[in-house]
Amino acid sequence: MPITDHVGWIAVDWGSSNLRAWAVTAAGRVLAHGGSERGMLSLASSDYETALLEVVGNWLPASRRTPVLVCGMAGARQGWREAAYLPLPARLDDLARGAVCPPVNDARPAVRLLPGLCQSAAGAFDVMRGEETQLAGLVADDRRFSGLVCLPGTHAKWARLEQGAVTRFTTCLTGELYGLLARQSVLKHSIGADDLAAPGDREAFVFAVRDIHANPGRYTARLFGLRASDLLDAGLPAGDARSARLAARLSGLCVGLELAGMGDELADSGPITLVGNAALCTRYALALEALGHESQRLDGDAAVLAGLGLAYQALPAL
Amino acid sequence: MPITDHVGWIAVDWGSSNLRAWAVTAAGRVLAHGGSERGMLSLASSDYETALLEVVGNWLPASRRTPVLVCGMAGARQGWREAAYLPLPARLDDLARGAVCPPVNDARPAVRLLPGLCQSAAGAFDVMRGEETQLAGLVADDRRFSGLVCLPGTHAKWARLEQGAVTRFTTCLTGELYGLLARQSVLKHSIGADDLAAPGDREAFVFAVRDIHANPGRYTARLFGLRASDLLDAGLPAGDARSARLAARLSGLCVGLELAGMGDELADSGPITLVGNAALCTRYALALEALGHESQRLDGDAAVLAGLGLAYQALPAL
Repeated sequence: MPITDHVGWIAVDWGSSNLRAWAVTAAGRVLAHGGSERGMLSLASSDYETALLEVVGNWLPASRRTPVLVCGMAGARQGWREAAYLPLPARLDDLARGAVCPPVNDARPAVRLLPGLCQSAAGAFDVMRGEETQLAGLVADDRRFSGLVCLPGTHAKWARLEQGAVTRFTTCLTGELYGLLARQSVLKHSIGADDLAAPGDREAFVFAVRDIHANPGRYTARLFGLRASDLLDAGLPAGDARSARLAARLSGLCVGLELAGMGDELADSGPITLVGNAALCTRYALALEALGHESQRLDGDAAVLAGLGLAYQALPAL
Repeated sequence: MPITDHVGWIAVDWGSSNLRAWAVTAAGRVLAHGGSERGMLSLASSDYETALLEVVGNWLPASRRTPVLVCGMAGARQGWREAAYLPLPARLDDLARGAVCPPVNDARPAVRLLPGLCQSAAGAFDVMRGEETQLAGLVADDRRFSGLVCLPGTHAKWARLEQGAVTRFTTCLTGELYGLLARQSVLKHSIGADDLAAPGDREAFVFAVRDIHANPGRYTARLFGLRASDLLDAGLPAGDARSARLAARLSGLCVGLELAGMGDELADSGPITLVGNAALCTRYALALEALGHESQRLDGDAAVLAGLGLAYQALPAL
């Protein structure tokens, strides 16, 4: 039976560097999924329709218009069409009210771009675009979800949810900082594969988390210390094990600094909900555990799909 | 009267990216100076003699051997020839004892490469190469110099001197971190000229120093906050003034984090001696003043020349 006979709507997570899409039945069952590397950074406004149809075109019945719900950077000012940020507090079951329709020539898809969120408090300006839909995935399961949520990544997000609404959030440049240091600084000669595969690597990661959490001001000194350790520390293993150990320490310094900064939020939080890919969530769970915090997890793909589903239900009939 | 008639010795500061040289009389008067962009990173071991003679060759009398004293990365393992690090505590009037002679074909120069310093304490591994000679410049004036010295830069150094010896030091990756963030991160779209030219820029710098010093864990969040402010903060000026303001904030965050990490050293320090170029020392003096610390300055070129002079006097007759 062809997908076109059963598709109810199409879910799309369209980020800076790629797009991922799912064909979903009206009842919420995934029929097919696909993706491409055509993200916002590589697309002009006029390229989006073609890039979308390359991935989802075969799922669209010719006989009717199929809703296509898109979250992420496609809705940025420099994307397909801008879906203006919603201000806080923002109910996560209500993202669809900020959706916009981009220009589309093909008669089959009815495309809606979901908005991001912005926080305009002086001294705490912040924006997110895409992560709000992952957060909405938590609310899809529990409309009154409350708690502290962390979405690790290039720009890690920490969001406080109260009764299904985002009341404040903080973005940390942690992942980008790690990448710059590991690949483009003087440390690049010392930093290797970072998979925390060896028990010694996990210990080094945890040690670095605790060390910098206790004294976050030492961060820039500890960074150079990784280079100096590579030159001088006879206690380090050799070869690939050495560069993996130093990578674990660098990761621990970066994650530990982020957690030090979230201290006030963490202090009176219940278990922290981690949303993202398994490896990164495991790493954050390890760091949080080292500081005495419990965590639970939700897969990032499951979250975004559930969040898009919640928005789909809230859309007015197209 | 030609330089060759009066030159007593030649001073060379040979770093990663350039070399600078001075022709000096036996009595310590500078007759000439020169330099090139041929630093350690662009030279193979066999290139050094030619690169040196391009700059100092015309100063060398044919009739006798002229001492050429070199500090910096030319003495690194990957340089001309390795001058092994001296361990701490290290008397700064005694750097010459670690000098090595590289291979030289020309009969006129008698080249000596000065060593760097290393600190092998577990948890505080550190190295310097070049800065020790600037520190020796302080000791040239006062053999019993004691105090806390800061040499701002790509890899900023903080050294504790006691009675003319280095007893401990810390390297902070501050300058390199700033450069990566300003030029290669998502912030590059927001960061402009960083000269603290406008009063508002200086205020923003000082505010950021105090902010991050009070809560260094907020560093990665404040970094992303610069980007979000650029998107959302109606209080920022427009155009070049806007990107200069955000550059001042970024600089304040980086310097303030470094100062937060040096808290213990700063707590019971007298006036801090800043050694380096005028603009960078002015910036650090401003940050230190904002945190209630006095500082005094020594020009970086004057320091390295005085330090090389001290080592020259300590060399056995060649």
